Amino acid sequence: MSKVRAHISVSVDGYVAGPNQTMEQPLGENGERLHDWVVQLKQWREQAGMEGGVENVSSSVVAEEYANVGAEIMGRGKFGPPKRGPWDDADAWQGWWGDEPPFHKPVFVLTHHPREPLTLADTTFTFVTDGIERALERAREASGDKDVFIGGGADVINQFLAGGLLDELELHVAPILLGGGARLFEGVGSEVRLEPIRTIEAPGVTHLKYRVTG
Amino acid sequence: MSKVRAHISVSVDGYVAGPNQTMEQPLGENGERLHDWVVQLKQWREQAGMEGGVENVSSSVVAEEYANVGAEIMGRGKFGPPKRGPWDDADAWQGWWGDEPPFHKPVFVLTHHPREPLTLADTTFTFVTDGIERALERAREASGDKDVFIGGGADVINQFLAGGLLDELELHVAPILLGGGARLFEGVGSEVRLEPIRTIEAPGVTHLKYRVTG
Repeated sequence: MSKVRAHISVSVDGYVAGPNQTMEQPLGENGERLHDWVVQLKQWREQAGMEGGVENVSSSVVAEEYANVGAEIMGRGKFGPPKRGPWDDADAWQGWWGDEPPFHKPVFVLTHHPREPLTLADTTFTFVTDGIERALERAREASGDKDVFIGGGADVINQFLAGGLLDELELHVAPILLGGGARLFEGVGSEVRLEPIRTIEAPGVTHLKYRVTG
Repeated sequence: MSKVRAHISVSVDGYVAGPNQTMEQPLGENGERLHDWVVQLKQWREQAGMEGGVENVSSSVVAEEYANVGAEIMGRGKFGPPKRGPWDDADAWQGWWGDEPPFHKPVFVLTHHPREPLTLADTTFTFVTDGIERALERAREASGDKDVFIGGGADVINQFLAGGLLDELELHVAPILLGGGARLFEGVGSEVRLEPIRTIEAPGVTHLKYRVTG
């Protein structure tokens, strides 16, 4: 069966976004530093329509994580700015990514509030209001033999971990402290078992990949 | 100048002891699993007077961490069981380690309550009531050219980090979740800068070593 995988950049003190997330600073204070290692990669820059960049051992890690993914599940907090409540026609929020989002695959957005699907170029965002298990069913249907990627944020990955629904988790550990923010593993408990797959040391980041069981 | 170094086993979710520490379970629930990687080492077993054990890449990591240390600073919570308040003649607590503690060097115990020094074999425990900076001065005096080791727990390492007093920090990341307990980096904030020194993947653990600046 296809796998359910997550990979996410995390500070040494365990945060995937800094404190005080706002519309202007969606990753919170200093949160953009979590991604210094990846935004310098040629691969990442190409995908974002930018020139230049380097290739290093992280390039193969990123290639591995992007390969064989058929659908993504994300939280509303990744799709939109820190706002709660019903979707509002007035703001007509269409995600952070402009007219051509970089997903190129079906994306399922977890939310408490119904909204019609949104198609931008080759990405369709489907809004799922009936929980992570139903979102996973739909993502599996959409992804066929390919894997499902859990795109975050922390609370969504934590829910999948706590629910025993994740097969692989890769942490891209950035050598920074954020001191607060969205904490990975919060509320997950101690029942989840992790089995190391591999460790890769790379410029500005250490990649720790685990198989998740039980 | 000699360095101030810490190294400690930590769960993937950032705890150095599990929840509900007690006299019977000083490392909290499941906390002993943090040390599975080290207690299987020949080196560790010899030092604890036990036979057998294996040698692997962690052996050199441990050797490196134990080398050139002239004094240790620890919190009362590492020296004794989870008890607060004045030292009591009635309990006459002498540490967890019996008549021959494995330190073989001066140990400075941070406490809010005065107590006379305690000598057991070649280890003298000195109780310091005037804070981490004074403890560090005394440990430096005692260690000469050698380094000072900050032996934990989490709160003591966090204080040294927050105070800008630590030069090196090595995390022995055990592939487990503890779900609660004593959390490393809690309250440290985001001012501390970490610079990766090296990563070593070993059986049942990943060693991440950082230089600490600012």
